[in-house]
Amino acid sequence: MTNATSQFSDVLAAIRPLDPKYAMEAQHKLNSLTKPIGSLGRLEKIAAQMYCIFSGEVRLPLCRSVYVFAADHGVVAEGVSAYPSEVTAQMVLNFLGGGAAVNVLARQNNVALIVVDVGVAADFNDAASLCRMKIRRGSRNMRREPAMTEEELTAALDVGVRLAQTAAAKGENLVAVGEMGIGNTAAASAITSLLTQQPVAVVTGRGAGLDADGRNRKLHVIRRAIKSHFGAEPNPAPLEILRCVGGLEIAAMTGFILSAAANRISIVCDGFISTAAAAVAHALSPNVRDYLFAGHCSEEPGHRHLLRLLDLTPILNLGMRLGEGTGAVLAMPLIESSLRLLTEMATFSSAGVSEALS
Amino acid sequence: MTNATSQFSDVLAAIRPLDPKYAMEAQHKLNSLTKPIGSLGRLEKIAAQMYCIFSGEVRLPLCRSVYVFAADHGVVAEGVSAYPSEVTAQMVLNFLGGGAAVNVLARQNNVALIVVDVGVAADFNDAASLCRMKIRRGSRNMRREPAMTEEELTAALDVGVRLAQTAAAKGENLVAVGEMGIGNTAAASAITSLLTQQPVAVVTGRGAGLDADGRNRKLHVIRRAIKSHFGAEPNPAPLEILRCVGGLEIAAMTGFILSAAANRISIVCDGFISTAAAAVAHALSPNVRDYLFAGHCSEEPGHRHLLRLLDLTPILNLGMRLGEGTGAVLAMPLIESSLRLLTEMATFSSAGVSEALS
Repeated sequence: MTNATSQFSDVLAAIRPLDPKYAMEAQHKLNSLTKPIGSLGRLEKIAAQMYCIFSGEVRLPLCRSVYVFAADHGVVAEGVSAYPSEVTAQMVLNFLGGGAAVNVLARQNNVALIVVDVGVAADFNDAASLCRMKIRRGSRNMRREPAMTEEELTAALDVGVRLAQTAAAKGENLVAVGEMGIGNTAAASAITSLLTQQPVAVVTGRGAGLDADGRNRKLHVIRRAIKSHFGAEPNPAPLEILRCVGGLEIAAMTGFILSAAANRISIVCDGFISTAAAAVAHALSPNVRDYLFAGHCSEEPGHRHLLRLLDLTPILNLGMRLGEGTGAVLAMPLIESSLRLLTEMATFSSAGVSEALS
Repeated sequence: MTNATSQFSDVLAAIRPLDPKYAMEAQHKLNSLTKPIGSLGRLEKIAAQMYCIFSGEVRLPLCRSVYVFAADHGVVAEGVSAYPSEVTAQMVLNFLGGGAAVNVLARQNNVALIVVDVGVAADFNDAASLCRMKIRRGSRNMRREPAMTEEELTAALDVGVRLAQTAAAKGENLVAVGEMGIGNTAAASAITSLLTQQPVAVVTGRGAGLDADGRNRKLHVIRRAIKSHFGAEPNPAPLEILRCVGGLEIAAMTGFILSAAANRISIVCDGFISTAAAAVAHALSPNVRDYLFAGHCSEEPGHRHLLRLLDLTPILNLGMRLGEGTGAVLAMPLIESSLRLLTEMATFSSAGVSEALS
């Protein structure tokens, strides 16, 4: 066992389920506030979950960051994307220049942005918001060989694990997980099909804009990749799924999510790709579910299957399909709202408001 | 014609439909940004609508306020609410003290809060955030007589009209409309049944927390009120509906929404009650629709019927049913996000990002 794999076992073991005592405490507090019982709807559930993650010691304002994991995908050579691979690097430069959608939303919502190069097929200069942790210039073509070797998978997971440890050390307590990687919906669809046991066609969409022919090609490539790596094997191990049909950024997100949960950091998944990473994390350690929020529901058809698998209800449903962490960042202020309501509202007794007639 | 009614006709005439030229301009701009076409989903529609309301001259940050219209309802004497009437005044004091849910959300989201006493059955001292515009200590009991006389209706509409004129003079360009009034779901259900032609039982819920018996009593009271004022009249005039089965705060909201639209201010409806006011406004001037946004979808069953009538898609759907403007305030940052994306994102050419392969 290498040092990184032994650390990874420690991370899995460190993810503790939430104590239901705090959920009851939160509900009791919510019921004392000047509003009809239950009238804040889903915000009450979100507040209670956050309260549990904080073990009742809520710190506000939340310290919020979005991590955008970027990597290229060898499988793009098979024509599974509407955009050329170069766009991954171009968009990383766009993130560093502040012009992408996630930049705009992060600025507006006071969310720090960290771009993580785990495997982009281009070189970048140092930049304040860039973590240079490249493992390889793109994953391997999963249609021809596993997307990663075991060493590459371990290294990618470890990138995520270490980033979440740093986040914890910096006091971050709410992180959004986003990504950029031309071709990564193909990887996410393969993972989703294997984890949810849904047919490839059900969980595969047009990505960033394939036409019908392009989508058919994508379906064919994903089916062939799954068959060549797993044959008729009914339940491949989660890490083998990740290694063979995942990607460097998806593996790093998986490590990040697990390590964030181990450090009691609340995690907001974004769309299809980051939720696929969360689903792998969940397959490795079901306790991780307690620390997850679904920022929004993507238009990519596989996303709702992953949300169902994880039993997550998305906070927003705006028909977005952009990735980058955009949907997760948009949901962050609502998560903060839920906690502010819990902690800042007056109670019936403090405000002298009459309760409901019995 | 009194002075107020003549001014009201001027307001209706001043509501202009949006120019589709700006919608095309917004869409063209959205399509040039560094993201797959259409990938921001509903945010693109919201951005385009806001861009049209601004006639292409977007001003950011948005100047945002929430107006909470408060009044009591005579019909509470019939036992249609789970809370006693006194709670209206108690909650107004809670708003002034900063302890209600809408205070917490307005503070977090940098939204100014204005409380408007149009008809609370209690007296208040002056306060910075209170507009004292009381017309009567509660509306009349609609089960026994029209909720307002013609003079009271005109005065209540006029309160709203003047507040929106002041808002425009202050440079406000995004206003949320909320309310507080024990008993007002009964009024909103009566209005909704008449405007949507749905049976009373379909559009009437448990309000702030009635049990099944209480809801049955409420249904009976609403049916009797409608019958006594309108008999079998199939399509009563919107202002007569508002006068006979509305309420002082609902009438003020109707005037406010119309006058805001006439002043090209974007309006975010909150839940069932404020959307009932918007539906009356829409029945008086269909052009008002162009200036409306639905902040969220309330759990009150009548709300979705009003949203359908107005062809509005709610921005949030969090199972809330609190009123006060809470759902509308939560949606305001998302409306601002849509405009920031439109105006701050890099374009494919400015960022040197390749467009989709043809």
